Amino acid sequence: MSKIITISREFGSGGRELGKRLADNLGFAYYDREILEEIAKQTDTGEWYAENLLERNFSASIPLHFGSTFTAYQSPTTQQTVKLMVAEQKVLCRLADKGNCVIVGRGAAALLEPWKPFSIFVYADMESKLARCRERAPESENLSDKELMKKIRQVDAQRAKIIQWSAGVKWGERGGYRLCVNTTGLPIKTIAAAVADYARHIMEIK
Amino acid sequence: MSKIITISREFGSGGRELGKRLADNLGFAYYDREILEEIAKQTDTGEWYAENLLERNFSASIPLHFGSTFTAYQSPTTQQTVKLMVAEQKVLCRLADKGNCVIVGRGAAALLEPWKPFSIFVYADMESKLARCRERAPESENLSDKELMKKIRQVDAQRAKIIQWSAGVKWGERGGYRLCVNTTGLPIKTIAAAVADYARHIMEIK
Repeated sequence: MSKIITISREFGSGGRELGKRLADNLGFAYYDREILEEIAKQTDTGEWYAENLLERNFSASIPLHFGSTFTAYQSPTTQQTVKLMVAEQKVLCRLADKGNCVIVGRGAAALLEPWKPFSIFVYADMESKLARCRERAPESENLSDKELMKKIRQVDAQRAKIIQWSAGVKWGERGGYRLCVNTTGLPIKTIAAAVADYARHIMEIK
Repeated sequence: MSKIITISREFGSGGRELGKRLADNLGFAYYDREILEEIAKQTDTGEWYAENLLERNFSASIPLHFGSTFTAYQSPTTQQTVKLMVAEQKVLCRLADKGNCVIVGRGAAALLEPWKPFSIFVYADMESKLARCRERAPESENLSDKELMKKIRQVDAQRAKIIQWSAGVKWGERGGYRLCVNTTGLPIKTIAAAVADYARHIMEIK
């Protein structure tokens, strides 16, 4: 069975870079945007549309009775979102089947539970997340610290909501992960090398 | 400056064994019961008495106004507890000054903040903690699963209360630690080797 590492992360904590470096270090495949592309392809939608429904407008598009036996009218948007979620699960399973990989986001820790993934949650203190977001912001972005903090909290709250809905687990709660990694004040390169060695031990990678 | 590793842990998660193995693996000193012994010596109390005041009867012995400027009557027990807490801080600082070490418990992550310790929180799922407690219980202990779960939760709640009071931090909240380690389903020996390698990277241990 493939060895799977999943990365969930606070916005601005460097989780994506950590995932990429981890995959390079271990010689694993790395999946991130590719997953959305594949979902879009499978559902004959655009990548932007899939992202928009699965992430940004997620909570608005799912009615309160989703998952219950009460089958009231479902709007076309709801139907489309559910279709995308099913495709997401399929895409994740197919990628997991293909071989060892690191998957960033998409609630993969819970959705790929049968593979017993090495699930990692990446976090950092607010100061460090602000600094990282500033470093990566486009020239045109001119948010105050207060506005940027609000954005960081909003993205995380949205992630939490999506994971709760789609995978039924509480985002960020330690029990849902094998390892929670604080990136504050250290280069991601160093942390990635440390996590790679950790993974070698617990996943028995030669 | 010494390199310090601190271990906070859920009751039954194997944190103490992890700390011991980690110290052996890295060639660090290991402190656990020794700290209570030293506090007892310094305050001319018995070890049992120190433990009882600092752990078991902690919340009962500290009045609500502790730390405020309101200096009402303090019972002899309260005075004694405060004396023990001051001694604890001193003992921890002295041990940290002596050289590289692993310290289990005592809120050391927060109390030794100036040393920038590599602070680890160790946890596991309830099933795994029950199994570990059963394995280590004395022959005479005959608790049902329900009773044992209650005990595990009580010990953790007490630890949380002590840390909140003595160090002013929230026990178990990921932000207070550099790494949170889930021991569920893996031998502590394997996890200790993994954490030791992680520490080598981020603490620059040769």
